[in-house]
Amino acid sequence: MSKEKYVYLFQEGNAKMRSLLGGKGANLAEMTNIGLPVPPGFTITTEACNKYIAAGRKFPAGMLEEVFQALQELEKSTGKNFGLKDNPLLVSVRSGAPVSMPGMMDTILNLGLNDESVQGLAKLTGDERFAYDCYRRFIQMFSDVVLGIEHAMFDEIVERHKRKLSVIFDYELPAEELMIIIGEYKELVEQEQGRSFPQDVQEQLILAIQAVFDSWNNPRADYYRRLNKIPEDLGTAVNVQAMAFGNMGNDCGTGVAFTRDPSTGEKELYGEFLINAQGEDVVAGIRTPMPISKLKEELPDVYQQFLDTCLNLEKHYRDMQDIEFTVEKGKLYILQTRNGKRTTRAAVKIAVDMVNEGLISKEEALLRVEAEQINQLLHRQIDTSANVQPVAKGLPASPGAAYGKVIFDADEAEKEGERGEKVVLVRSETTPDDIHGIVYAQGVLTSRGGMTSHAAVVARGMGKPCVCGCEVLKIDLEKQQFTIGDKVVKKGDTLTIDGATGDVILGEVAMIEPTLSDEFQTLLQWADEVKKLKVRANADTPEDASKAREFGAEGIGLTRTEHMFMAQERLPYVQEMILAESLEDRQAALDQLLPYQRDDFYGILKAMAPYPVTIRLLDPPLHEFLPNRESLLLEIAELKFKGAEAKVLGEKETLLKKVEKISEMNPMLGHRGCRLGITYPEIYVMQVRAIFEAMYLLKDEGVETFTEIELPLIMDKNEFTFLKEEIMTTYEEVKKDKQGELDFRLGTMLELPRACIAADEIAAQAEFFSFGTNDLTQTTFGFSRDDAEGKFLPIYLEKKIIQNNPFAVLDRKGVGALMQIAVEKARSTRSDILLGICGEHGGEPSSIEFCHIIDLDYVSCSPYRIPVARLAAAQAAIQNK
Amino acid sequence: MSKEKYVYLFQEGNAKMRSLLGGKGANLAEMTNIGLPVPPGFTITTEACNKYIAAGRKFPAGMLEEVFQALQELEKSTGKNFGLKDNPLLVSVRSGAPVSMPGMMDTILNLGLNDESVQGLAKLTGDERFAYDCYRRFIQMFSDVVLGIEHAMFDEIVERHKRKLSVIFDYELPAEELMIIIGEYKELVEQEQGRSFPQDVQEQLILAIQAVFDSWNNPRADYYRRLNKIPEDLGTAVNVQAMAFGNMGNDCGTGVAFTRDPSTGEKELYGEFLINAQGEDVVAGIRTPMPISKLKEELPDVYQQFLDTCLNLEKHYRDMQDIEFTVEKGKLYILQTRNGKRTTRAAVKIAVDMVNEGLISKEEALLRVEAEQINQLLHRQIDTSANVQPVAKGLPASPGAAYGKVIFDADEAEKEGERGEKVVLVRSETTPDDIHGIVYAQGVLTSRGGMTSHAAVVARGMGKPCVCGCEVLKIDLEKQQFTIGDKVVKKGDTLTIDGATGDVILGEVAMIEPTLSDEFQTLLQWADEVKKLKVRANADTPEDASKAREFGAEGIGLTRTEHMFMAQERLPYVQEMILAESLEDRQAALDQLLPYQRDDFYGILKAMAPYPVTIRLLDPPLHEFLPNRESLLLEIAELKFKGAEAKVLGEKETLLKKVEKISEMNPMLGHRGCRLGITYPEIYVMQVRAIFEAMYLLKDEGVETFTEIELPLIMDKNEFTFLKEEIMTTYEEVKKDKQGELDFRLGTMLELPRACIAADEIAAQAEFFSFGTNDLTQTTFGFSRDDAEGKFLPIYLEKKIIQNNPFAVLDRKGVGALMQIAVEKARSTRSDILLGICGEHGGEPSSIEFCHIIDLDYVSCSPYRIPVARLAAAQAAIQNK
Repeated sequence: MSKEKYVYLFQEGNAKMRSLLGGKGANLAEMTNIGLPVPPGFTITTEACNKYIAAGRKFPAGMLEEVFQALQELEKSTGKNFGLKDNPLLVSVRSGAPVSMPGMMDTILNLGLNDESVQGLAKLTGDERFAYDCYRRFIQMFSDVVLGIEHAMFDEIVERHKRKLSVIFDYELPAEELMIIIGEYKELVEQEQGRSFPQDVQEQLILAIQAVFDSWNNPRADYYRRLNKIPEDLGTAVNVQAMAFGNMGNDCGTGVAFTRDPSTGEKELYGEFLINAQGEDVVAGIRTPMPISKLKEELPDVYQQFLDTCLNLEKHYRDMQDIEFTVEKGKLYILQTRNGKRTTRAAVKIAVDMVNEGLISKEEALLRVEAEQINQLLHRQIDTSANVQPVAKGLPASPGAAYGKVIFDADEAEKEGERGEKVVLVRSETTPDDIHGIVYAQGVLTSRGGMTSHAAVVARGMGKPCVCGCEVLKIDLEKQQFTIGDKVVKKGDTLTIDGATGDVILGEVAMIEPTLSDEFQTLLQWADEVKKLKVRANADTPEDASKAREFGAEGIGLTRTEHMFMAQERLPYVQEMILAESLEDRQAALDQLLPYQRDDFYGILKAMAPYPVTIRLLDPPLHEFLPNRESLLLEIAELKFKGAEAKVLGEKETLLKKVEKISEMNPMLGHRGCRLGITYPEIYVMQVRAIFEAMYLLKDEGVETFTEIELPLIMDKNEFTFLKEEIMTTYEEVKKDKQGELDFRLGTMLELPRACIAADEIAAQAEFFSFGTNDLTQTTFGFSRDDAEGKFLPIYLEKKIIQNNPFAVLDRKGVGALMQIAVEKARSTRSDILLGICGEHGGEPSSIEFCHIIDLDYVSCSPYRIPVARLAAAQAAIQNK
Repeated sequence: MSKEKYVYLFQEGNAKMRSLLGGKGANLAEMTNIGLPVPPGFTITTEACNKYIAAGRKFPAGMLEEVFQALQELEKSTGKNFGLKDNPLLVSVRSGAPVSMPGMMDTILNLGLNDESVQGLAKLTGDERFAYDCYRRFIQMFSDVVLGIEHAMFDEIVERHKRKLSVIFDYELPAEELMIIIGEYKELVEQEQGRSFPQDVQEQLILAIQAVFDSWNNPRADYYRRLNKIPEDLGTAVNVQAMAFGNMGNDCGTGVAFTRDPSTGEKELYGEFLINAQGEDVVAGIRTPMPISKLKEELPDVYQQFLDTCLNLEKHYRDMQDIEFTVEKGKLYILQTRNGKRTTRAAVKIAVDMVNEGLISKEEALLRVEAEQINQLLHRQIDTSANVQPVAKGLPASPGAAYGKVIFDADEAEKEGERGEKVVLVRSETTPDDIHGIVYAQGVLTSRGGMTSHAAVVARGMGKPCVCGCEVLKIDLEKQQFTIGDKVVKKGDTLTIDGATGDVILGEVAMIEPTLSDEFQTLLQWADEVKKLKVRANADTPEDASKAREFGAEGIGLTRTEHMFMAQERLPYVQEMILAESLEDRQAALDQLLPYQRDDFYGILKAMAPYPVTIRLLDPPLHEFLPNRESLLLEIAELKFKGAEAKVLGEKETLLKKVEKISEMNPMLGHRGCRLGITYPEIYVMQVRAIFEAMYLLKDEGVETFTEIELPLIMDKNEFTFLKEEIMTTYEEVKKDKQGELDFRLGTMLELPRACIAADEIAAQAEFFSFGTNDLTQTTFGFSRDDAEGKFLPIYLEKKIIQNNPFAVLDRKGVGALMQIAVEKARSTRSDILLGICGEHGGEPSSIEFCHIIDLDYVSCSPYRIPVARLAAAQAAIQNK
């Protein structure tokens, strides 16, 4: 058995060893091997880090021996000596995880300085001031990062001495003063730690390595990992590298630069530079650096060398680079290069430009843009350069930012909106009665309700910003104001909401308008060329359908007919239908609804023709259309106390009885979906009649339409066959006095575990399945979304019991496994069955990838997420070839 | 390809051809072949029937040709001629399905008579009166069964003629009068049908066969099938058999007899007999027959021959027989024999007796008793011989019958009950506050709530009769009465309820007491010898545990700790715990609850020692322990109107806010189960501390206990590991100052689809799984039991979309498939994992069979269902060898 190797010299590694050497280490190795001017060094592996953590903060056996052996190699190649007065070797110690985690990990420079070697450095450079400045910086940094003594305490000492000498900049402090400062630093360490600052440079190195390993688990790193979904067991590597000095005079310096503008993507060098300074001066922002273009004036040769290096680096790494460099006495050293972080806008431009430059392929370009992020480009955003302080946070229910006057009433919102005022509608929760107000509002803010509440669903459908369930908000309708803690916001005050983050901000905030650049369109065209999944839209109105077509939808994967029922002028008929005591009464109400529904379908089918439109028949429990039971109870109680007329009271009581009769313990699992169609076939008959009549009207106009009639909440083939018969009978009736046949399919939403298990039997009857993963997630987990997100899901995420909210990111282990079972079973009885997904997961990249993997035919998502879905589908196709 | 054979002569068939020839046909064939005196005949197959139905009431090609060929064979073997004047052949035409459906199908006798052949019959028998009586009966029966003319219209004619001649019995009518009657019969047919009575005997036969086939789908047959869970696609066979005549004089007769008493199981001939009569006289009850023992006096030779035949038949069929026979001029004909229907009591006795007689094996005996039925023997039942008229029907929530005075208040029920009064507690629904009343009541009747309502669960636990959700019941507490339609029942009136059927009956009804005979005990002992599944009880109290042991439980499969929380003296602490704003407050309330819980566990563990006890930690959503939200709302509204003190009002409003905060849209899928344990670890910590302390107390007393601590509603391994750590930490704490280790396991209830899919990962952590099939059925189907059973399930059953209520009979296709997946996955990571079921299915025979098939270790059910489960488990083992 060969001994485990924990330490690699830069020349021993390469770019492919990222997981072992970390991003930075692999990069330094690669750079070294392609001949770039990199100071020599070595890398301690991530494996060493993981073993260290697993063993309870103990280095693995043999690691330190390897470290000191590598250090000897550094001494050899630099001709310097670690810890000695004579030509001392100084090193930097940096973390480097396999995944870029900028700013998250800690770095130490100038390690190897002590009371002796500082004198060697002074002698070597002939610059005593520089040497003591290095030592001072090192003590400060080491004490901060390794010993945990606050930076500010050291700064105070320096500031005191600068005041004493009346100087402004650090470099104006003479060597003698620095020596005094160092003495005071050391006293401070002793006083804070009860031990003196380590003079043994080997101990310095060991402690520094330990600090880097430990920093893997510091709260900032932890937070960053959670935010960016980075696994915890990657570990970090440690890079030990000979120091290059940027602070040896005015022919020295240090800087960071991007090979292209990380904000816009324009192809021009972008970065900052400081003359006569060490790297941390740039990063820490202690001195104000100058733009990289100034380097051309200051050090023209170095600038040209740097420019050439940048071009070579881009050619080599085939991506925009983020470079740290140092100039030591006119010589350029590249300290670090990595793929640069960039805004989404820049990412799109750089990817497309690089294809045009012949640097990368279209497929590579598609992988360069994070699909989830391009959503930003479609919505107005808060300008994050403005320092914005939210006063509350709700659920991010519908993306985009908006500001406007606070209005508490839908009618008023409509009135104000109509005359051009920007308003934000603030309600405890919205009901169908508020829709006209939402239409005229810039955005909606509610204090109750989850991601599937009425406000959230309606706002997403309209592409309007919405923040929901902001529970700290206490609305007082009488006073026409709300409070958040002790802050009072009155009607007419200006408020900003960010539906992408859930932030609520007082006043008006600067916004960034959405930008749909040419490069953006190009990228999406390329996406369409490689993706296997079709992308459809969830759309309930002709307006949604048109918007969806604009964004590139290839059909509608879900039209929810219930929102049509909610419209103000129809609700009375819907309620009549529900409360009908006899079939005759119910039929009479349905007859009133038929023309409305026919118009609805006519509009949507026309807007989407000739693409397919999936229309889901009525799904929600009927009490959603009725007055609230509690309100009725209270109303009756009030009427009684006030001694109201018996007739008035009687009517209310009768209504209450009916509402009570259809109210349910768990409406989610109750009398809804196809269960309504089976118990009241006449409702579905009305709906399909409206569909068929609309299709014939369009046929007469020469518009060819294709409809997929979808039965919700099917759990068994018998439900399907029962309803199929009703639907086909209706079709025959409508067809009687019409010309020709219509083009339609019958299928079902697959949203119950039992339907997945029985998919073979159902597929024998149904021509398409669309996975309703919202409900499927609820039933598979036994989570009610409304209840879970408000109550225990945040705690589950916090305690790391689940990694993601399963309503946002499809749970492959459970829900996904059921989908896979269903796909296999469905194809076993109907090989050409059309398979799609229309839950909210249909617009989320990781979920889309899973849909690609299990070979669905399409994903369907809200219109505004279609670009995300197109890109994600392309990425899935590329990554799962 | 050989031609399909639709017709079998009796000598061509045998007993094994039951599915093709029907029970009766296979039996006649068998009887013929073992040499019994059976009149010759043939059978048209069930396949012919199914094809006839499938083809829309059309005979399959070739069938009729085969029928008439077989008829020729009959003519040959009897020497008689079908439809001719000379020595006419008369036949009976009877239905016979593969499964016995007594009384459900229609029968025609004496077919082949017409105006001519009737003269031949007269000549042949030398008895003109008999021949015309046959003809008259035939017309009447044929017209009734085939042509659909009511029996009563013919009876009127006969009665008129009897009055005219002043005679009492049919047989007193002379031939001349019968001829007039026949004329009038034919006129009636012509008048009702617009066509004359068919004289073509072939047409008679064809119409009769058609009528039998059609009768398969008549409403009575349909109802019987649904009631007895008989599949619809079995079809019925038709048996055509030469007539034997029991009405040719006083040396003739007809009768039916059982070889043993079908009511008690006593080994003695049991039946009835009519001299000089045709079979239908006995069945139809037109004349009063004499007991079979009288035959000994009337026709001693025939009696002896019959007795011998009975013994032979029992030996041959190895079961108690139900025999139809006819004596024609002193010669005994066996028309039909089949396994006799019997009461459960008789079934048990006959099975055990036959083993002792050496007739059958123990295994056969076990299969002779329907497991579901033996439940009857454990509960008091309504005496069905009393003609009982229910006034209402609710849900059969807890079996057994009870009567008592109607009382509307729990306190009053307790008071009355304490002084020995029998009372029935009538409530709209019960709450934990009513438990003391239920204890003292004979039974409970509620107008709201389903099979899982508080009343139902508590009553089943106590083994008390309960009828739930009787919605026609309108309770008026002010007047202390309830109404059902226009019937008014006042406090103190006597009422009877039948918790096995849901019947509500006014007044007191005769009851049959439960009988646990020696044979019953013997049978269950035999069951234990062959069953593979262990049988445990669901028991929440020491009393339940003792009852369960009495019935043979081998442990407790489910102790629900929430019922303990509901007890009156604890509820205040439970509410304090729930409403606590801080951990300290919650802990203080929990500290109060700890001693109660310790006592609970002490009692149960002691009662069940040394058998294992599964204790499920707190499961239901917390608001179940709080005041009802609506009541609070109304209370506050009232306080406001009455201008109550601000302090009183404020307290109520604060309470309401808290109640609202934890109220949920879908509590079934909400913050419950292990989610409580994860968000409030201190609750579970208190519970397991109580368990461990109780176990140590018992250990000190020398009682060895074994506990299985069960985490409810687990969906992922991470939940389990999180809680496992809390529990093990608590164990270590309790153990500190105690002697030795405790014997316990940690496991989970498997009740979510995701848990089944992720069973491999969970099993790597958990030592046992118990399938909670109530919840698993809810989530797999997306059915809320409470809502489904009250709203759409009855319609689903009626429209045949589902065959059984999935909450009663385990759904193998969906829920079962998930269980099977879970079993395989669980054993893949922990081969010796203990697997059980504790949903209500654990006491239902078909579900128990499925548990046997997928190789679970045990089933757990309510104490009173343990005998059912033991027998069902044995039957499953035998039938799935």
